[in-house]
Amino acid sequence: MKKAVVLLSGGLDSATVVAIAQGQGFEIFALTVDYGQRHRVELEAAARVAAVNNVKTHQVIHIPLTDFGGSALTSEIAVPKDRDEAKMNSEIPITYVPARNTIFLSFALGFAEVIGANDIFVGVNAVDYSGYPDCRPEFIAAFENMANLATKAAVEGARLTIHAPLMSLTKTEIIREGLRLGVDYGMTHSCYDPSDSGQACGRCDSCLIRQRAFESLGQLDPAL
Amino acid sequence: MKKAVVLLSGGLDSATVVAIAQGQGFEIFALTVDYGQRHRVELEAAARVAAVNNVKTHQVIHIPLTDFGGSALTSEIAVPKDRDEAKMNSEIPITYVPARNTIFLSFALGFAEVIGANDIFVGVNAVDYSGYPDCRPEFIAAFENMANLATKAAVEGARLTIHAPLMSLTKTEIIREGLRLGVDYGMTHSCYDPSDSGQACGRCDSCLIRQRAFESLGQLDPAL
Repeated sequence: MKKAVVLLSGGLDSATVVAIAQGQGFEIFALTVDYGQRHRVELEAAARVAAVNNVKTHQVIHIPLTDFGGSALTSEIAVPKDRDEAKMNSEIPITYVPARNTIFLSFALGFAEVIGANDIFVGVNAVDYSGYPDCRPEFIAAFENMANLATKAAVEGARLTIHAPLMSLTKTEIIREGLRLGVDYGMTHSCYDPSDSGQACGRCDSCLIRQRAFESLGQLDPAL
Repeated sequence: MKKAVVLLSGGLDSATVVAIAQGQGFEIFALTVDYGQRHRVELEAAARVAAVNNVKTHQVIHIPLTDFGGSALTSEIAVPKDRDEAKMNSEIPITYVPARNTIFLSFALGFAEVIGANDIFVGVNAVDYSGYPDCRPEFIAAFENMANLATKAAVEGARLTIHAPLMSLTKTEIIREGLRLGVDYGMTHSCYDPSDSGQACGRCDSCLIRQRAFESLGQLDPAL
C-alpha cells in the first residue's frame, strides 16, 4: 500500500479527507497539530476520527503558535460571531492564523520524508471557507513546487504530491461525499469557540458554514 | 526602521547574518528554533549573539522534531566524522534534518506577519556546506514565491523578501565579511556533536568546514 500523510484537525473537512484517501487505497499516517488552539476539543475529535478509521499511525505534534499570537484562535482576541455571508466572502477574519497551513504542511513534509511517503492530503477548500489565503489552489501549487526542491527525497528523484481533494467542492458537496463514504460527522468538531464542555457555539463562521450545508441536505448537523 | 526576522541558530553563519542585516539598517527580531537538536549548546550561543548585538527581541520557539527523528541531529544516529571533501561534495549526510529549513522559514513567515515585517534573513549557503537541498538558491526562491501567496499580508499587498546574503559566498568569504563587521566568532557554536561540556568535536562536517576556513585566513577557530 502507498503511504500518505493526512493532516487531521478533527474537523468535518479533514475527516472527509481521511475517508477519501482511504478510498484511493492509501495507508494513512494521520498528523494532528496541537498549536495551542482555543478549540482544544478538536484534538479529541481528531483522536476519535483516527481510531474509527483504523489509521496506521496517528501522531500529534505540539507547536506553540500562541507564542506568536496574532489570531483569535491563538490569543485572547474574541472569535467573531453571526457574520453574514457577504462579510464572510469579502474579508479575511481575525480567526486567520498567520502562516498556519504553511507551517502544518511543512511538518507534514518532514514527516512524509521520514516515513517514505510521497503523498500528503490536506482538507483545504476555497469555496465555502473563511477567505484564508493559504486555502487557495495557487498556494497549494506553490507549496508543492517548493516542497519538490526542499528534501533529500526530492533530490533523489521522489515526486511529492499535495492532494487537496476538497478544494473546489462546496461544503454541501463535501458532506454529501463524506456521507457516501460512511463518515460519521457526529465525531467531528468544527467550532472555533466551544464552551468549556466542548459544545459548539453555533455562531462562528465555522459553525455557520457547516450548519447551512447540513440544512441544504435536509439534515441536522450531528455535532450541534 | 524596517523590521526583519533573522533566523538565529547560534552558528557562524547566522551570527554573520545578524551583522549584515544590522548593517543594512534593519531592526532585528531574532528567532531561534529549539527543535530538540543534539547540539543544545548552540541555543546558548544564540542567546549570546542576540544579547551582544542588541537585537530588538529574541524569541525561542520549541518544536519537537525529535518526534519524527530521521536525522543524526534529532535521534541517536551517530554524527559522521572525518569525512573528506570529495565525500562532503557528493552525498547528503545523515545530519540532514527532513524539511528543517522549510519548517524554520514557515515559522519565520508566521512571526514576520504577526510583527509586520516584510523581510526574513536566513544564513543558508550553497558553497561550503553539507549538500542539504534546502540550502540551495532554487529552494529559497520557491519558498519566497509560496510565501507571497500564503499570508493575509500578501493578499493585502505586502511583498515578503527572503534574504540569503551568504548564499554564494565561500566559508572563508563569510568569515572575512563577519570580521569586517565586528562579529565575535568565539561566541558562536557550529559543532554537531559537542561534548557534554559544550566543547566542539573538531571532526564533524560543520567543524571541519569552519576550521579550514579560519586556517585559510591564517587564523585559529576561536570556538575550538
